[in-house]
Amino acid sequence: MTRSIDLNSDLGESYGPWVMGDDEGILAVVSSANIACGGHAGDPETMYATAMLARKNGVTIGAHPGYADREGFGRRIIPMSCDQITRMVAVQIGAMMSAAALAGTEVAYVKPHGALGNLAAEDISIAAAVARAVRAISPDLALLALSGSALERQARHMDMPVYSEIFADRAYLPDGRLVPRSKPGALLTDAATAARRLVGFMETGLMPVTSGPPISLEAHSICVHGDSPSALTIAQFVRRELSEAGISLSPFIASRTI
Amino acid sequence: MTRSIDLNSDLGESYGPWVMGDDEGILAVVSSANIACGGHAGDPETMYATAMLARKNGVTIGAHPGYADREGFGRRIIPMSCDQITRMVAVQIGAMMSAAALAGTEVAYVKPHGALGNLAAEDISIAAAVARAVRAISPDLALLALSGSALERQARHMDMPVYSEIFADRAYLPDGRLVPRSKPGALLTDAATAARRLVGFMETGLMPVTSGPPISLEAHSICVHGDSPSALTIAQFVRRELSEAGISLSPFIASRTI
Amino acid sequence: MTRSIDLNSDLGESYGPWVMGDDEGILAVVSSANIACGGHAGDPETMYATAMLARKNGVTIGAHPGYADREGFGRRIIPMSCDQITRMVAVQIGAMMSAAALAGTEVAYVKPHGALGNLAAEDISIAAAVARAVRAISPDLALLALSGSALERQARHMDMPVYSEIFADRAYLPDGRLVPRSKPGALLTDAATAARRLVGFMETGLMPVTSGPPISLEAHSICVHGDSPSALTIAQFVRRELSEAGISLSPFIASRTI
Amino acid sequence: MTRSIDLNSDLGESYGPWVMGDDEGILAVVSSANIACGGHAGDPETMYATAMLARKNGVTIGAHPGYADREGFGRRIIPMSCDQITRMVAVQIGAMMSAAALAGTEVAYVKPHGALGNLAAEDISIAAAVARAVRAISPDLALLALSGSALERQARHMDMPVYSEIFADRAYLPDGRLVPRSKPGALLTDAATAARRLVGFMETGLMPVTSGPPISLEAHSICVHGDSPSALTIAQFVRRELSEAGISLSPFIASRTI
Repeated sequence: MTRSIDLNSDLGESYGPWVMGDDEGILAVVSSANIACGGHAGDPETMYATAMLARKNGVTIGAHPGYADREGFGRRIIPMSCDQITRMVAVQIGAMMSAAALAGTEVAYVKPHGALGNLAAEDISIAAAVARAVRAISPDLALLALSGSALERQARHMDMPVYSEIFADRAYLPDGRLVPRSKPGALLTDAATAARRLVGFMETGLMPVTSGPPISLEAHSICVHGDSPSALTIAQFVRRELSEAGISLSPFIASRTI
Repeated sequence: MTRSIDLNSDLGESYGPWVMGDDEGILAVVSSANIACGGHAGDPETMYATAMLARKNGVTIGAHPGYADREGFGRRIIPMSCDQITRMVAVQIGAMMSAAALAGTEVAYVKPHGALGNLAAEDISIAAAVARAVRAISPDLALLALSGSALERQARHMDMPVYSEIFADRAYLPDGRLVPRSKPGALLTDAATAARRLVGFMETGLMPVTSGPPISLEAHSICVHGDSPSALTIAQFVRRELSEAGISLSPFIASRTI
Repeated sequence: MTRSIDLNSDLGESYGPWVMGDDEGILAVVSSANIACGGHAGDPETMYATAMLARKNGVTIGAHPGYADREGFGRRIIPMSCDQITRMVAVQIGAMMSAAALAGTEVAYVKPHGALGNLAAEDISIAAAVARAVRAISPDLALLALSGSALERQARHMDMPVYSEIFADRAYLPDGRLVPRSKPGALLTDAATAARRLVGFMETGLMPVTSGPPISLEAHSICVHGDSPSALTIAQFVRRELSEAGISLSPFIASRTI
Repeated sequence: MTRSIDLNSDLGESYGPWVMGDDEGILAVVSSANIACGGHAGDPETMYATAMLARKNGVTIGAHPGYADREGFGRRIIPMSCDQITRMVAVQIGAMMSAAALAGTEVAYVKPHGALGNLAAEDISIAAAVARAVRAISPDLALLALSGSALERQARHMDMPVYSEIFADRAYLPDGRLVPRSKPGALLTDAATAARRLVGFMETGLMPVTSGPPISLEAHSICVHGDSPSALTIAQFVRRELSEAGISLSPFIASRTI
């Protein structure tokens, strides 16, 4: 019996002359790439170049829309109606689809970024706003949602293809939510600890939480971050430890190459 | 025998709180709408709202990409390589396609805007940069090009669907090019004169020029501008005069409603 | 005995190719102009042109900083720390000071715009963030604050020059706050009613409120809005009615002409 | 007899979440900082933080305005009239002056950036457009101009304070202009060679050129670049070599601390 899981990371977050992250390094490790769509980060050059790199590495492409707020990097909540969010998300996905087409590949899924992703995980109406944008564009587009989130529930409710992710380096609360970044212990900073936790999860389906017994979570993908200095190190470590435990990496869905 | 031609106009050029043009009025007159894609003008709200209005009026939707230079309204040449132009144009078309999909309709053609449109009409390498973006996205997407332009020639050379436009209110040089806006007489400011010229053209296929005999031009569409105060008046006048001459308005291609 | 008061309006809110409001008309009526600083609206051309027009009309210039959110026109709260607000406001004021200097005049006061203005009226820490920006730039720069607001109190607390404004067309609550725009009756839409209320206020110092007896308010200036279609009509009407009641218009402070 | 010269570098070129250059490292080495003003790079946070760091290091602050084109980093010529350039430059300088005031210091000089700097070095009308912006803001503001450039001549013609700079790492043509970056040998990549050339220049006032005898150049400052990976190394090396040759570093003008 072989087990496998996807490894995803946020990529394509450079902008104009400003470089963020080691996309080339990360794309050699992950199996899915959430590529910024020119909203919180990215621009036509970066979107295209990241799609080309993903294609060369056989990495599945996801669109990674966020609040169109570069100075806040999509991490601030910009007051918008649900309908406005649907329009913003749709337009960003469409932009990324064209960049992928130019690179001879395609967007296979959508994962909302930053503050928009957090809201979509908690608030069913924001989750629906995101899901409606995705469905209007193509019935083939999947969603990648935090395991147990409102977005995951909403996508199922709308009969849309949806995949679940867990975080490599974030601590979990007993109810399955992430420990907020502002709390102590929110981040697992030791790569070995993070990797061991993931191997254990893959063997048992149970995730340790801040207090009480571990909980059951569904996961098709593990998120490793792309914008911290140690991101590549952690991603490489996780990949190696999973591999040594007999767990292979493969995307939950493939980008068709055109 | 019935004759017909398309009437197109640049629309969706509002931005955030700023309104430009009477899109609702113009959409009741034209048969094709070149909608700004968030580059030189437009934003997700405007793109969606304009697509909705176009659909309600049975107006075909074209994407109208331009230099991503709002302060210059896409009328300044921003130094970019041909490959950069291809990426910028592709991303804007994709954005507009998603906005149209949300509105239950689709982008049927692409017409470059402003300084980019002028370059694509004169310079075969810029024309090819635009055409490559269109073709990479979909073989079904047509181009709308100035009659006799480099873009028209390039699209034919690439076996792409292409339609030709003439201008309702611009004077022509003997070689078929437009009299530059900076020259006297470049603009026909009298609606009746403009309409008479178009009716004559529809009857003979010949366009008067600044000196010498009229020239033969191919045209599937007539462009009326959307951003001048008198735009609506001229468009209405042209439509009525064509109608009275027995020429009906119909788009050169239709947006499928989804 | 002559009585006088200032009339102020938000101006310079065009952007690139997009025109907002009839600045030329309004500047012939008001005595102080709150000019957008390139944040929520405005750009170097608009800032300079509006400063020139103000100077020609003998109108005092105020800087009108707002959230740097063009698509939201400064009417959305962008999550920022107080220190970030101070920096944003300072930079916008400085930009406007240079535009005024180029036009041979100067910024005499500062009035925060939109969502930032509302927060500064309610929240003493935001008020302090705005006031600190102003004071760091020049001890001569005054603040224009809603009568009874946190910003007015904070400026006094910091021993800064501050002037108070009332609104020509907004209803007041018994505690001196404005009826929120979302409530019925928040706006006085009839110019004659608005003008009569102002004349009464000038004669008694008392402002009618939604229930109970009129309240005492301090006012050095009356705000008439610049971005509604009827703005000019209301401003002209208010000016004439005040004049007929023997109340002259004069700025609470003057822009030195250089 | 002691000799001294200034060392300047382009700084404050981060934007929102994107970091560019090691400003902290460079500010420990140079004596003058050309700080981006929110046009081609920078934002209120970066402008303020860089001004604070400069002040702590006793480094003089210059405003570094450029084309307001972040994606092109101010390195593309954006078509603008001279008057538009004057307004753009003025507004950026004003923004930087306020950021400096908040940091308890002040802008002492202006140096145009990138494509604008190149044009101002070659074209007397662009030079005048920049100089007029500076003079309108304050007669105390100096210009920092390429030695032998149109900007230097124009500033002298307008009786403005102007200082001349040479480049640490750029080769010179016999007429005193820089070898264009596109030509081989334009850049001195070896720090030791660059430093030796500068020490020689300081001793003789003569600069080696691509062919023929060295030429006489005036210089109050040496520019070391801030955005290349080796920038800090070169700057440190140049500083040490100058120091060992008995040449001290001191700014050509001082920022008053408030």
